[in-house]
Amino acid sequence: MQERRADILAHLADGPVTGPALAEQLDITRAAVWKHIEALREEGFEIASRESGYRLESIPEFGGSAVEFGLSAPFTVEYHDSIGSTNSRARELAAAGEQNAVVLANEQTGGRGRLDREWSSPSGGIWLSILLRPEVPAVHAPLFTLAAAVATTRAVRELGVDATIKWPNDVQVEGRKLAGILTEMEGEADRISWLVVGIGLNANVDSTQLPGERPATSLRAEIGDVDRRRLTQNLLEAFWNRSEQTESILPAWRELTSTIGQRVRVETQREEIVGEAVGIEFPGSLIVDTGAEKLTISAGDCEHLRPAE
Amino acid sequence: MQERRADILAHLADGPVTGPALAEQLDITRAAVWKHIEALREEGFEIASRESGYRLESIPEFGGSAVEFGLSAPFTVEYHDSIGSTNSRARELAAAGEQNAVVLANEQTGGRGRLDREWSSPSGGIWLSILLRPEVPAVHAPLFTLAAAVATTRAVRELGVDATIKWPNDVQVEGRKLAGILTEMEGEADRISWLVVGIGLNANVDSTQLPGERPATSLRAEIGDVDRRRLTQNLLEAFWNRSEQTESILPAWRELTSTIGQRVRVETQREEIVGEAVGIEFPGSLIVDTGAEKLTISAGDCEHLRPAE
Repeated sequence: MQERRADILAHLADGPVTGPALAEQLDITRAAVWKHIEALREEGFEIASRESGYRLESIPEFGGSAVEFGLSAPFTVEYHDSIGSTNSRARELAAAGEQNAVVLANEQTGGRGRLDREWSSPSGGIWLSILLRPEVPAVHAPLFTLAAAVATTRAVRELGVDATIKWPNDVQVEGRKLAGILTEMEGEADRISWLVVGIGLNANVDSTQLPGERPATSLRAEIGDVDRRRLTQNLLEAFWNRSEQTESILPAWRELTSTIGQRVRVETQREEIVGEAVGIEFPGSLIVDTGAEKLTISAGDCEHLRPAE
Repeated sequence: MQERRADILAHLADGPVTGPALAEQLDITRAAVWKHIEALREEGFEIASRESGYRLESIPEFGGSAVEFGLSAPFTVEYHDSIGSTNSRARELAAAGEQNAVVLANEQTGGRGRLDREWSSPSGGIWLSILLRPEVPAVHAPLFTLAAAVATTRAVRELGVDATIKWPNDVQVEGRKLAGILTEMEGEADRISWLVVGIGLNANVDSTQLPGERPATSLRAEIGDVDRRRLTQNLLEAFWNRSEQTESILPAWRELTSTIGQRVRVETQREEIVGEAVGIEFPGSLIVDTGAEKLTISAGDCEHLRPAE
């Protein structure tokens, strides 16, 4: 069904086309063509009916077919105006055997962050989860989280936002959080069964709508409202390209991080470590020089401190 | 229910005890005591009723209460005479919110190995899956697989079997497989939600019942039939102790492996690597020196080759 709509849009993109021609090219009935056209109109596509045939006049600002239209990555996009959690929905798709699927929402009513923390997701943001089944061992999973941070940072930099990555995957502007990433997975040592990479990007929302311990920011606050459709496409394409070339992820991350060279405090499940962040190593561990020793930290909360006197 | 039986056994272990005394000590009715005693008898415990009270005469060779009885690890043990797959059942327990649970079977009818390979599990083996929720980042998961290999190897060595570990987690005797391990998990980068470590140990089975590309062996073939109850307890206790001291796992593994120093061929999902296995590093990656370079391999099938001329 969804796929048919993408096919119809692809045909309309080449210029006006009649209902009978579409029916023949897609090998469906004229009635089916009409139903798909109506469904696209409901999604916000303006499609005129003229003597020369159907003609695509405009694309909606956001939505599943809108993001799929012209997307150079093999994702299907399921859109929700409002949903509890895109990660939870993507996990359902994983359980149903899907892959390369994106769940996209305008608003989340029960957005989750790392470690079951709340994640504010007001209307106007870009809240999405990507379901992948990469053929790599399970310990490679953190690379995809870093890839999502790289893709998001690059995509907003193209809009002129001076974003950097705080280890492991917070996208920040001058120390204020612009986007966060939550990756969940299931698998065995030899392979990942499924991977869900959730990206929450504070796009066209007021930063005052983003409560939390630390101040957050949004694209609206930084540069004004953006074209969410194009931004989502750029982000998904950048993520897909990185996920296909996993060896490029760490070097790209190093270029975009603000953590390396910083004095940091990292809270892990067992301890608190203070020192200088001196590097990152496969599959995404931070190396912290405490003065006494160099520690390799797999996961934790990282805070940038002011340089020691 | 299960817990009550363990309590009753603990009391019986101290000597004969009357029904009324048990009822009072456990704060249950005499009828309930009688039901639990009957259930234990059905599990194979011989419990005599004398004037001095109930008296434990013998413990069954295998089973849930038998393995729990005297076990120095905080596991509950669910026993199945025959089951499809202990790992699948342990995943169900994980979904139901359980932890520190062991699923134990005498026979599996649909045993699974790594990468969905078949795993022969005839009656008489020790087929078990351990459900844990360790508070460690997800990338630490492979350590628990290595810990299971260490625990299994140590437990059978105590019986006089000259077992070694082939990277990452095959327990072998002179190149023939005695036990295999399949670890499955779900989680996010910062933490493991659940971990299921499946151990398949060819115990009291004929090695001719173990088909496969490569010859397997069994404890019966090596040293004759063993006390599965004691062996399972030793294995679970050794595993639990390792899982509490994760920093001890790699050193213990190095002591027991036959892979380091060997010429190996490793097939990963992407390539085949031939070289000398020169080490293992956190969280369980094999380091192979190909002559041209040293490669770090996260997961794969490892074959020991004869030394190059």
